[in-house]
Amino acid sequence: MPAPDRTLPVTDRTRHRRLREQGSVSRDDLDAVLGAGFVCHLAVVVDGTPLAVPTVYGYDAAAATLYLHGSVASRSLRPAPGAPVCVTVTHVDGLVLARSVFEHGVNYRSAMVLGTPRPVTDPGEKLHGLRVLTEQCAPGQWDHARRPDRRELAATTLLALAADEASVKLRCGPPDDGEGPDAALPVWAGVLPLTTAWGTPVADPALRDGVPLPPHLAVLASPPPST
Amino acid sequence: MPAPDRTLPVTDRTRHRRLREQGSVSRDDLDAVLGAGFVCHLAVVVDGTPLAVPTVYGYDAAAATLYLHGSVASRSLRPAPGAPVCVTVTHVDGLVLARSVFEHGVNYRSAMVLGTPRPVTDPGEKLHGLRVLTEQCAPGQWDHARRPDRRELAATTLLALAADEASVKLRCGPPDDGEGPDAALPVWAGVLPLTTAWGTPVADPALRDGVPLPPHLAVLASPPPST
Repeated sequence: MPAPDRTLPVTDRTRHRRLREQGSVSRDDLDAVLGAGFVCHLAVVVDGTPLAVPTVYGYDAAAATLYLHGSVASRSLRPAPGAPVCVTVTHVDGLVLARSVFEHGVNYRSAMVLGTPRPVTDPGEKLHGLRVLTEQCAPGQWDHARRPDRRELAATTLLALAADEASVKLRCGPPDDGEGPDAALPVWAGVLPLTTAWGTPVADPALRDGVPLPPHLAVLASPPPST
Repeated sequence: MPAPDRTLPVTDRTRHRRLREQGSVSRDDLDAVLGAGFVCHLAVVVDGTPLAVPTVYGYDAAAATLYLHGSVASRSLRPAPGAPVCVTVTHVDGLVLARSVFEHGVNYRSAMVLGTPRPVTDPGEKLHGLRVLTEQCAPGQWDHARRPDRRELAATTLLALAADEASVKLRCGPPDDGEGPDAALPVWAGVLPLTTAWGTPVADPALRDGVPLPPHLAVLASPPPST
């Protein structure tokens, strides 16, 4: 059996016109970008104005489906059902400090997913989507917290967006002006890495006595093993 | 002399319809959100599709002006000069873990600035905007790196956007279900803080010998004094 094609289709909307060396058409890269983080920016048009709305998301890589929650999206999308949207996930990895201001830049990984979302109405898929979304934030949390009851499920708006048409862009590594005439300048050049990490958990002051931090959250807050 | 009004005007586009307690109309809050970070998401409509494009920005608080750089924006905006845009800056501060999945949320600070950007063509303002943008990333860098020459200035597209019409939203603190019936559940509740920090600077392998890390970058990479 041939290996499945892991190349993203290129459309007029996703073709990389500028900085082609930063573009990727690999679905593995797309999955990695969407699998990290849990806040995206949803671009929608409301009354003629494009808005970039921050909201939480979950990504089901096996089904190549993004789930967007729900209340924010619902307000923004209600005016135009069936309208195209863009979901962008961006990770900023560092500041690229070159010898010249002109060559400064950012190391980053980003994915823009284009398409028309569909409201999730089937209760089974809604539960699945909420599970994906919850597990994306904190793996293990779905089995720890109280799951939505029927009333809460009905009050939750969930959108599904196929992650098929996507533009993935990545930049890593040092600045690009180490070879030119600026290389002789007495200016420091390199990368300032930017890292995001969980801090020490802060218990709710109203937490009842004797409820410990569960292992799946304790492990998030621990420093990763040094590699 | 009366103190200047530090309240943001409320328009149909910026009125907070949902979760009003998370909305702010304080210009101080707007300045604080825009003053932190250096990557925004620019929402534009290209060929009928809204896009959320990550790009770097700088904020001149005294002039209430955002500067957007330039190549990404220029590609995206070229199809529709004079078209409205939205610039969103979002800081994710933590994950709010409630007893029920339904009450989960995010601690965050975000600002959506709406308006029509203008291309910066005056060489003096272009230099000023690039300085604001560079200093937002790494204060002190403008005096360290080689500044743009005439050719580079001409090749740089810079946009200015007045930060007058803006929607600011903030959430902090513990989950909200500590008072209801779920408070009796044996489920941990609280906040997992998320922090972003500079890591150890990585010198360009092509950096010439004897160029030290300048103090304005060394201080960024140092852990902040404990408070």
